[in-house]
Amino acid sequence: MSIAEQRTDSVSPGSTSMTATAKRQLVQDLTTLLGEQHVLHTPYDLALYEYDASIERGRPDVVVFPSTTQEVALIVKLANRYQIPVVPRGAGTGLSGGAIARSGGIIIVFTRMNRILDIDYENLRAVVQPGLVNLHLSNALTPQGFYYVPDPSSQRSCTLGGNVGENAGGPHTLLYGVTTNHVLGLEIVTTEGEIVDVGGWTYDSPGYDLTGLLIGSEGTLCIITKIIVRIVHLPETIKTLVAIFDNLDAASNTVSEIIASGVIPSAIEMMDQMILQAVEADTQAGYPMDAAAVLLIEAEGLYEAVEVQVRQVVSICEKHGARLVRIAADEAERQLLWAGRKNAFGAVGRISPEFYVQDGVVPRTQLPYVLRRVSEICQHYGLRVGNVFHAGDGNLHPLILFDSQIPGEIERVRLAGHEILQVCAEVGGSITGEHGVGLEKQAEMALIFSEADLRVMKQVRQACNPHQLFNPGKLFPLPGRCAEVRPA
Amino acid sequence: MSIAEQRTDSVSPGSTSMTATAKRQLVQDLTTLLGEQHVLHTPYDLALYEYDASIERGRPDVVVFPSTTQEVALIVKLANRYQIPVVPRGAGTGLSGGAIARSGGIIIVFTRMNRILDIDYENLRAVVQPGLVNLHLSNALTPQGFYYVPDPSSQRSCTLGGNVGENAGGPHTLLYGVTTNHVLGLEIVTTEGEIVDVGGWTYDSPGYDLTGLLIGSEGTLCIITKIIVRIVHLPETIKTLVAIFDNLDAASNTVSEIIASGVIPSAIEMMDQMILQAVEADTQAGYPMDAAAVLLIEAEGLYEAVEVQVRQVVSICEKHGARLVRIAADEAERQLLWAGRKNAFGAVGRISPEFYVQDGVVPRTQLPYVLRRVSEICQHYGLRVGNVFHAGDGNLHPLILFDSQIPGEIERVRLAGHEILQVCAEVGGSITGEHGVGLEKQAEMALIFSEADLRVMKQVRQACNPHQLFNPGKLFPLPGRCAEVRPA
Repeated sequence: MSIAEQRTDSVSPGSTSMTATAKRQLVQDLTTLLGEQHVLHTPYDLALYEYDASIERGRPDVVVFPSTTQEVALIVKLANRYQIPVVPRGAGTGLSGGAIARSGGIIIVFTRMNRILDIDYENLRAVVQPGLVNLHLSNALTPQGFYYVPDPSSQRSCTLGGNVGENAGGPHTLLYGVTTNHVLGLEIVTTEGEIVDVGGWTYDSPGYDLTGLLIGSEGTLCIITKIIVRIVHLPETIKTLVAIFDNLDAASNTVSEIIASGVIPSAIEMMDQMILQAVEADTQAGYPMDAAAVLLIEAEGLYEAVEVQVRQVVSICEKHGARLVRIAADEAERQLLWAGRKNAFGAVGRISPEFYVQDGVVPRTQLPYVLRRVSEICQHYGLRVGNVFHAGDGNLHPLILFDSQIPGEIERVRLAGHEILQVCAEVGGSITGEHGVGLEKQAEMALIFSEADLRVMKQVRQACNPHQLFNPGKLFPLPGRCAEVRPA
Repeated sequence: MSIAEQRTDSVSPGSTSMTATAKRQLVQDLTTLLGEQHVLHTPYDLALYEYDASIERGRPDVVVFPSTTQEVALIVKLANRYQIPVVPRGAGTGLSGGAIARSGGIIIVFTRMNRILDIDYENLRAVVQPGLVNLHLSNALTPQGFYYVPDPSSQRSCTLGGNVGENAGGPHTLLYGVTTNHVLGLEIVTTEGEIVDVGGWTYDSPGYDLTGLLIGSEGTLCIITKIIVRIVHLPETIKTLVAIFDNLDAASNTVSEIIASGVIPSAIEMMDQMILQAVEADTQAGYPMDAAAVLLIEAEGLYEAVEVQVRQVVSICEKHGARLVRIAADEAERQLLWAGRKNAFGAVGRISPEFYVQDGVVPRTQLPYVLRRVSEICQHYGLRVGNVFHAGDGNLHPLILFDSQIPGEIERVRLAGHEILQVCAEVGGSITGEHGVGLEKQAEMALIFSEADLRVMKQVRQACNPHQLFNPGKLFPLPGRCAEVRPA
């Protein structure tokens, strides 16, 4: 079976095998619990929840909108009674199919559980509900001089529950780490519908670090109903600069040398020519459309330290032949540069009807080689590709452009994506940096984990989710298919 | 049953119920595997491994010193065959009984697995064996301008395997986090004796974050045989200052205000008068013996930023009435100040035959209240207490002085320790910041975790260590005893 066939096979565009009678009864039970307006079940309504931002799909039997942890616990108990899956969903901005109902069941959407429950400025903590939009937390904190660090590009719409489920990253992971470095405790609902607290507000909670385990577990171990996050002071100074290169390798080598020099900027993003053209047409942020690559570099902290760092970064960029290094003159220009970067995926809509974002990680020193291989692989499959990514972390995001109306194109996209991940794995990297495995990369797990490695993970799933009630059929390679995943 | 009785009951100063014949056979099998000089089994030899740095004890049946992962795997398979416990042990510097054989079995000591296997300066990673002494890693990195961040006070002797097992902290956790923030991947041996890799060198490994789960699992889920750690550049500048206070509350409030101001020094340590007197008598680092408290504060990073931070810290200290703020003039003075702090536990030997270190965490803003309660509790039990701790993290280390020759004194020490942890839990804190639960705080787990919380943790243990082969009878409250843990 080819990978393309496996993918097509792996999602169920329909729903579960629930009988019409059982489904009617389930909808009635959920309506009694939540009220009619908080239960969706007609095909028309369900169609909206078939997708996320990936190229995967699958239809649930019913979509519900609880407003309390207790309601979530009761929904899980109902799901147990009907023996149907439960899939948690935030804003549906995920890129690997994590929030899609693979085999029907109940999708729990957290739109109504979107409040900030507590902010403790003195001890630098906040308690939030999972449906809170990422940016809304920082917006609430900024007037007091604080913010929440992780800033995925989708931060205007993605939710903190989804961020925790996928262990989301963002441009500033370079200095500050990913979501798991900013979450200290959770309230969860177990598969039995029990409400449990894990972790707390301290750095090292006694007993097992279940918070660490659950962050990034992609909805397969529990349903998250409350999150304790770290908040931090806004930096005194932020300086953002754009370095323009006529040569892609020179840009990559600049990244390696900046890190090797001991300077750690808060972000080093790279965009190649195709992306620059799309972004500039879309945002008019002042990016050059003729450059081979641009680095968007940010330094932050105390004024004096930022000045020094910026001087060092400028000098390294110049040494590697940057044709121009421009420092954003003010906050407005800085925001515009970031708007361009963060809207890059959207901007690509200008040049292609569809695109597929890959998410691999490689050692920074391997960036020039891997970028060349990405280009060769896409050329081989007759596909256009652009690169916009977290260069400082070695976290690649090749955007492969395609049109699903062209017969065979989506299959070639999947094959190219798979080959790119093979290259990442070969150089000692990883198959996902921040977008998760979900439905998208189940087969590729076998590229970096042995059967014994996966067996231990499955033992943990067995302990927390023995009947695969939560988000079934994701994350792990499907039985008997690992070995068959080979480009045709 | 009082807590004191429970404690006495909870350790077995003898060994397991192995028959003499079985034990002889086991020793023979281990000798065949490892060679005679790497297997200890006489009562005289075993007595050395009955202790760690806590007040707990327990004797193993046999102590072994493997030199490879394969040998560790074979030892675990043997333990399975004999159905006896396996307890991993580094340098035995642990403070909660984690490396003690509670009910006999095999102690695996990692002295021979103490090598640095690989250092990748470009990608800022190192791969080490668990028996490597913490400080030896930084010593190897320093000539190239790098170091490994976590620096427990015992870093001259404690091992990285033990650090991972306990998720060790240290003075610099304030800025850099605990061990889990610096470890990216592990090689482990499972209870079946299988060798498995978890995590890797990237920040966010796909699948479950088993690395996060296993760090701090205190030897109850797996045996660690290899560790991938982050290494970082040495800071350009480090400045260390001592602020001297005539009033304990003023010192505590200074800590809160420094953090609230947005300055995050790399360390803020506090020592009270009793500790200062012991330390100064021992180290002659220039600490005042008449002060109520001293803060040892360190700032590090780029020269310009450190200068600014130090100015801010000095001004906050002065505002709170510090009678003197002294900046270490040179590296020699800085090292001497830290030597005093890091040898504080040892120095207490000058003023008491024995001491018991507690390890609780409280919100920084609660420091003045909790320090008062610590003093009142110890006074109530007629015990002397000194405080030397990570004030910036709110991580208390009351040192309760005692003499076990005085009848009833050890029981009063345990009761006082328990009451101190009750206070920490009451103000929203935790029962351990970095020393672990082990044998020492099993009962206190119930102060901060509900039965449902603990049930989820036990499910995870059941998944990874179903027959309690690894470090049995630790970490969790003993059956039927949670409710009985009350001061008499």
